[in-house]
Amino acid sequence: MITREIRLAAPVTGEPGPGHFTVAETEVDGEVDGEVTVRTDYVGLAATYLELMRADCRIPVPAWQPGDRVGAAVVGTVVRSGSPDLAVGDLVQSMTGWSEYSAGPAAQYVKLDRGLFPDPSYHLGQGVTAYYGMADVAAVGEGDVVFVSGAAGGVGSLAGQIARCRGAARVIGSAGSPAKAAYLVDELGYDAAFDYHDGPVADRLRELAPEGITVFFDVVGGEQYDAAVRAARPGARFALCGSLSHQLGGDADRFPEPDRAAAGARGIELLPFSCHHTPEQVAAWREHFARWLAEGRFVFPQTVVEGGIEQVPGAFLSLLKGSYRGNVAVRLA
Amino acid sequence: MITREIRLAAPVTGEPGPGHFTVAETEVDGEVDGEVTVRTDYVGLAATYLELMRADCRIPVPAWQPGDRVGAAVVGTVVRSGSPDLAVGDLVQSMTGWSEYSAGPAAQYVKLDRGLFPDPSYHLGQGVTAYYGMADVAAVGEGDVVFVSGAAGGVGSLAGQIARCRGAARVIGSAGSPAKAAYLVDELGYDAAFDYHDGPVADRLRELAPEGITVFFDVVGGEQYDAAVRAARPGARFALCGSLSHQLGGDADRFPEPDRAAAGARGIELLPFSCHHTPEQVAAWREHFARWLAEGRFVFPQTVVEGGIEQVPGAFLSLLKGSYRGNVAVRLA
Repeated sequence: MITREIRLAAPVTGEPGPGHFTVAETEVDGEVDGEVTVRTDYVGLAATYLELMRADCRIPVPAWQPGDRVGAAVVGTVVRSGSPDLAVGDLVQSMTGWSEYSAGPAAQYVKLDRGLFPDPSYHLGQGVTAYYGMADVAAVGEGDVVFVSGAAGGVGSLAGQIARCRGAARVIGSAGSPAKAAYLVDELGYDAAFDYHDGPVADRLRELAPEGITVFFDVVGGEQYDAAVRAARPGARFALCGSLSHQLGGDADRFPEPDRAAAGARGIELLPFSCHHTPEQVAAWREHFARWLAEGRFVFPQTVVEGGIEQVPGAFLSLLKGSYRGNVAVRLA
Repeated sequence: MITREIRLAAPVTGEPGPGHFTVAETEVDGEVDGEVTVRTDYVGLAATYLELMRADCRIPVPAWQPGDRVGAAVVGTVVRSGSPDLAVGDLVQSMTGWSEYSAGPAAQYVKLDRGLFPDPSYHLGQGVTAYYGMADVAAVGEGDVVFVSGAAGGVGSLAGQIARCRGAARVIGSAGSPAKAAYLVDELGYDAAFDYHDGPVADRLRELAPEGITVFFDVVGGEQYDAAVRAARPGARFALCGSLSHQLGGDADRFPEPDRAAAGARGIELLPFSCHHTPEQVAAWREHFARWLAEGRFVFPQTVVEGGIEQVPGAFLSLLKGSYRGNVAVRLA
């Protein structure tokens, strides 16, 4: 079976662009013993993939090399099966990446429950990162005053809702435009939100959390991180997710370390965590996500881009520019 | 009684110099009801005082203003007493600062046990910061592999010994010269040490801790912090003390935030802490310090500068330049 796939044309240094990707045709055949062929239905997009495309990838996992298919998370449907473990029509998730079809041993595909969520694309959200960061790293609970940066993004749009479902007293978000800030309050249940371009972030936090914050969930860094340090109550927990701003720049563009004297005076726990998750972390998120959706306490903020496989790199670049709200998936089939 | 004291002439911006200080003569009289007069025997010097001299002091405490006496920690002897709580000859500690004599309510002087340590200057060491950071913040214990930056300084020279006394498996230190590195191993019981100018710090750590570190005690930041992140085992604890490099420069000179993706992949806990301590923290350190000294398991690395009160600013500036080893005190009497 002929399929088209997106390959990394060159490792990314500096700003990523269309030239870093190429479309290639190849053949897949997954009907031999123990193998399956899967049609990709949705490709999930996340800024964190950029790290794996970088020449100086800093995550201790094998990065993608030029000529490799971009191996991101997808959900799809089994269309041929040579394995007793998966049947034609089964919904599966895999890291087989940006291709129309994939094939391989059944073990590299995880069977999903088609009835768990309203749509298969819900499996591709960045909720595991949001849930792990809020529940396990920051241990958000009753009474917490939570500030989420990048709150309209894939992770942040879920993080604030998770904090609220876990009993936080107040959830404040920042985003990159007045429209996104309004969206946080109107549709995602944030108690307050602001456009981080709108004057010093420290001033906004003083107004919106006059008694200080106890939790900061950060995907941005820089000025917002600094302001959160100054707004923190003693013993505040900061869950620090891999920051997009770090990923877009080289080492020279890294933000300064937040003021250590100010952070030390408040005894803040700075807790960086990984966006790569264990099966247990995935299971914990799915269980809570499905329950909160069923209870009507949660929405899934999502942008679905329609298009062929050749649209995926462009959608990824748009994601990095902040063009979308919520979690982003490309629907191929 | 006439005394001379050192006052802050101007708030420090950028590099501190002799022009930031002035000597002034004044009169003290502590024989009225409830007051005492105290002769300053030793002035303790610590880099952390620089923060309180800065125009943009970032610690949420009242900073010193031009014309104020530099109010650092000293030990002295009561020479006149109008209070039943303190007798002439008593050894006391206070924050009365850089002056030959001071006077005030007895309550601002803490009576010390003259027999607890071999010399009164031992009360002025930065051991509380070292002990609180190692014991409470990093919770160093058996099996830990510990890396201490700035290990020949006032805090670091005690931090490594504290880790060893608490059962650390291996203690590694860095310092600013080969002589200081040798001193760490030969006299302070470090298992290994290196001059941080000697090639990439990451390479030194790979050689000296091939299986990684579990604790980093940092007073420096920058390249050493970055290298420690890369050398960390999963779940390592980083006790981050107010960094001298931060204090010497302005905000623009702050080091970049260490690589968040790398720190997150290892789940490192970054724990900044304050150098300003509670009476309970002081008491915990003194108890352990006295016991370890008595057991012969500990040395007190110290530089005592002899001189009059007018030598104190120069000694402080030398300290900031890294001219001394261990804890630094000026003996006035």
